[in-house]
Amino acid sequence: MTLMTGKATALRTTLADGAGPLLVAGAHDGLTAVLAEQAGFGAVWASSFEISAAAALPDASLLGMGEYLTATRQMNDAVTVPVIADCDTGFGNNLNVVHAVQQYEAAGVAAVCFEDKHFPKLNSFAGQGQDLVSAEEFAGKIEAAKKAQRDPDFVVIARTETLIAGGTVDQALERSHAYADAGADALLIHSKDRTPERVVEFLRRWDRRLPAVVVPTTYFDWSAAAAWEAGAAVVIFANQGLRATVTATRSTLDHIVNNGSSAELEGSIASVKEIFGIQKLDQWLAYE
Amino acid sequence: MTLMTGKATALRTTLADGAGPLLVAGAHDGLTAVLAEQAGFGAVWASSFEISAAAALPDASLLGMGEYLTATRQMNDAVTVPVIADCDTGFGNNLNVVHAVQQYEAAGVAAVCFEDKHFPKLNSFAGQGQDLVSAEEFAGKIEAAKKAQRDPDFVVIARTETLIAGGTVDQALERSHAYADAGADALLIHSKDRTPERVVEFLRRWDRRLPAVVVPTTYFDWSAAAAWEAGAAVVIFANQGLRATVTATRSTLDHIVNNGSSAELEGSIASVKEIFGIQKLDQWLAYE
Amino acid sequence: MTLMTGKATALRTTLADGAGPLLVAGAHDGLTAVLAEQAGFGAVWASSFEISAAAALPDASLLGMGEYLTATRQMNDAVTVPVIADCDTGFGNNLNVVHAVQQYEAAGVAAVCFEDKHFPKLNSFAGQGQDLVSAEEFAGKIEAAKKAQRDPDFVVIARTETLIAGGTVDQALERSHAYADAGADALLIHSKDRTPERVVEFLRRWDRRLPAVVVPTTYFDWSAAAAWEAGAAVVIFANQGLRATVTATRSTLDHIVNNGSSAELEGSIASVKEIFGIQKLDQWLAYE
Amino acid sequence: MTLMTGKATALRTTLADGAGPLLVAGAHDGLTAVLAEQAGFGAVWASSFEISAAAALPDASLLGMGEYLTATRQMNDAVTVPVIADCDTGFGNNLNVVHAVQQYEAAGVAAVCFEDKHFPKLNSFAGQGQDLVSAEEFAGKIEAAKKAQRDPDFVVIARTETLIAGGTVDQALERSHAYADAGADALLIHSKDRTPERVVEFLRRWDRRLPAVVVPTTYFDWSAAAAWEAGAAVVIFANQGLRATVTATRSTLDHIVNNGSSAELEGSIASVKEIFGIQKLDQWLAYE
Repeated sequence: MTLMTGKATALRTTLADGAGPLLVAGAHDGLTAVLAEQAGFGAVWASSFEISAAAALPDASLLGMGEYLTATRQMNDAVTVPVIADCDTGFGNNLNVVHAVQQYEAAGVAAVCFEDKHFPKLNSFAGQGQDLVSAEEFAGKIEAAKKAQRDPDFVVIARTETLIAGGTVDQALERSHAYADAGADALLIHSKDRTPERVVEFLRRWDRRLPAVVVPTTYFDWSAAAAWEAGAAVVIFANQGLRATVTATRSTLDHIVNNGSSAELEGSIASVKEIFGIQKLDQWLAYE
Repeated sequence: MTLMTGKATALRTTLADGAGPLLVAGAHDGLTAVLAEQAGFGAVWASSFEISAAAALPDASLLGMGEYLTATRQMNDAVTVPVIADCDTGFGNNLNVVHAVQQYEAAGVAAVCFEDKHFPKLNSFAGQGQDLVSAEEFAGKIEAAKKAQRDPDFVVIARTETLIAGGTVDQALERSHAYADAGADALLIHSKDRTPERVVEFLRRWDRRLPAVVVPTTYFDWSAAAAWEAGAAVVIFANQGLRATVTATRSTLDHIVNNGSSAELEGSIASVKEIFGIQKLDQWLAYE
Repeated sequence: MTLMTGKATALRTTLADGAGPLLVAGAHDGLTAVLAEQAGFGAVWASSFEISAAAALPDASLLGMGEYLTATRQMNDAVTVPVIADCDTGFGNNLNVVHAVQQYEAAGVAAVCFEDKHFPKLNSFAGQGQDLVSAEEFAGKIEAAKKAQRDPDFVVIARTETLIAGGTVDQALERSHAYADAGADALLIHSKDRTPERVVEFLRRWDRRLPAVVVPTTYFDWSAAAAWEAGAAVVIFANQGLRATVTATRSTLDHIVNNGSSAELEGSIASVKEIFGIQKLDQWLAYE
Repeated sequence: MTLMTGKATALRTTLADGAGPLLVAGAHDGLTAVLAEQAGFGAVWASSFEISAAAALPDASLLGMGEYLTATRQMNDAVTVPVIADCDTGFGNNLNVVHAVQQYEAAGVAAVCFEDKHFPKLNSFAGQGQDLVSAEEFAGKIEAAKKAQRDPDFVVIARTETLIAGGTVDQALERSHAYADAGADALLIHSKDRTPERVVEFLRRWDRRLPAVVVPTTYFDWSAAAAWEAGAAVVIFANQGLRATVTATRSTLDHIVNNGSSAELEGSIASVKEIFGIQKLDQWLAYE
């Protein structure tokens, strides 16, 4: 049995084309995935931080693979661009990784990303005490993932949290090469530094062995163009949409409570008709 | 077996206290429900328009009761204020209504709202051809709902779409009295007029027989205070938060695509730390 | 974007090969689907009667498409044979049918079956008052379904409940031809007669215009071989597994309550090790 | 906010009454839960072994809390007796335990049971290499669970796998006392011995400090009456219903494949009408 949605192939082609950085936006539901596609992002990051925040729960493995998959499937069904699933640590051990690969691939998702922290994880920007599993254990997860996929174009991204956990660029490189040896298709180097220096050093020494993925959340002054120059193939803007949502929703709701009316806001928030557009209402009504 | 969460009782007390209008905000997930509570709204409207838009689907009964319940449960678990579930037409006939009441009540939801349109419904602001079921059939649904509840304080709201479907205030009143006779605990009078005149006339003649609920989406110049003066007990701001989300997310994502960076936005979108606050991260970490 | 699991193609090939009847077994979860495959059935019927019974709810459209899809996806993931989804009336109108086709196809399901009763439906063996929608309305659903599919091999089965609803063979044929004209890939003729006579007459006059599907629940004396001779291509044994489950589980649990022990049953119920086999435990443990 | 379904109170009363052993049956869906109640069991064990087997997956933490909760909620909604949720290791660390307690309690479940194995777990009857977390770590989980509950009658059962993991009765007692000190409401002593000797010794020395729960799967000759005599308060027949289901369904489906007909089985499997009874069809139809 083979399953081909074409999205994995499209993603793989993009990663290989050398035409510039792939811009990816974090999302947490069908709506925000559509907004990412409409804005021109080439892929959607089904972010565990966003999905757990949408559930009003911490990004700490409280939601399980099932809930993440449900949200990711909704996003994938809503857009034509590939979706990259943020699968945290793989939800447990090798068996959980295999199960996740089978399920995400069957849902038509183009790529999964696993990270080398312990389960249950804690968000990378929270607290200090991030523990990594051994490089050997995590390489085993990558191997298991690669064996489990059925579509050869399905993409497995290995994410190292070495820098997040207090490690050095040397250590990050050592782990990343082990993950590449294990079969990873791309490598995400994560950092919560205020500047991109260490990531840049990593990319220079990594020398495009595999497509590299960066997430400039804390070192936001570093542009996608600069990241591309430095050797990154993919730039994920992982949570800015969610953060805009919070500010805008809070401000709108505060205004309404204070004024008892939305009258003054009507010009600055989307119309109901614009929402109908996102819902593709006319297209649906044509089926009647 | 009795099930008491206290939220239904709290809602019922608020409806009876005469201390001013209950302000309710539409929401679609745990996050937006928390933002509504934090802004000071007294209850959350688990809006089928918002929930379906979040799924990037039209508000046309494509999602089923199960999906609406899952979203509503997430909202209810995330807030301490009561949640009012927008249950559209009741998802079918009397059996579906009974099933919905049992399930929503078991989830700790304080109130459900059923409307007198046909299943499958179409959003009230879309198209023209809204059909109503007979007053008798809908009164039967309200009776079935009231018989099905176990907590005597659970609130069943009857919503008439008479004005939406091209009917008159006389007809809306006739239906509303039938629904009150059938046992409804509150009455929602919906309208897509640009001005509140007909709703005001309705409220005057309704004379507070039951707490009246209004939804000033299209006649947004009418404030909650004015609605209260006119005889409304509850004012639902049903979708403004979602509409703000769309505008803000779109603008943020457009900016990032155009600039390859979020640097200029950092001051105007919520920080990651603010999201941690909504997720109650510190409170959760204390369990470790 | 194309989606190909190969299962739809396999089913279509089987329907065309003329090598004998396709035997299909009803199931309601991954376990019973595996048992059907292991017994040698060529496909699994994701039965709405079984799925609702497993939920301890009547087969009356109380569960929604989401719940049926979740159960069906579990079955499909568990077996290599094609799964045919019992989609009742299509869960509403044309829009619901289109949504169902998109979702079931995306889940890798080979075929869907829609029936010409009103939503919400009631199980065909219950009560008397079965109402059909007009042939024109139902043909419109079939057309909508066929336009919605992306894999050309995906199979849409039209099921007529004419005989169930008190109609004649003439009427059943008239409807069935309309559904074939609308693009149906196969035709299910349902009956709750005690004998197969009317179904046989139908099949004779239908003359294999499309592959015909029969469900000998009440006329159980009619074998698959006889059905094949009469012109049927597919024979669904829709609920016998569930009925065996109820009798066996009831008897086992009664015995335990009465004896305070399962000692005397150990030889006649599956061992824990046999369950491990169904769970493919050894295969999973090899991933460690 | 308080949540009271009465089921936790009922369970607690039963545990305290000294009137004989509480017989509990394993189940995996609404149907099997109803059969357990109808057979006379006093509670239902929402078994992770059964639920994962129903999904055709190994009992190895592949399903997450969300899937177990969904299945458990279905069981709880279907019966009037209390449901005891088999929550394995608590799905991770203390945060996961707290989240589970909040969610299961909100679902109206009377009790949860956590065990002292590592996450991800493997079924206790599979393999040899069962690892336990430290007694201190597990006692911390029990404390966290007890602090998280809101209904004071909600029951938290601590399950020690000491004997399963190769430990001694001394060690099992030491751990069990630590768990009792941490606030557990009941203690489950698990064993896969062929005879109950070590469990009997444990119970004798435990001396009813807390209600003790036993699961005579492998030492099935030991009756509930004997367990009660030995000091057990609760006897769980954890999977016999599922095992009967497998044998009966397999045999029925094999027969149909071999005979092309269910004719000879009709007298020995439940009628469709009997299924209607389990679905409470008549009661539902009265709502029309």
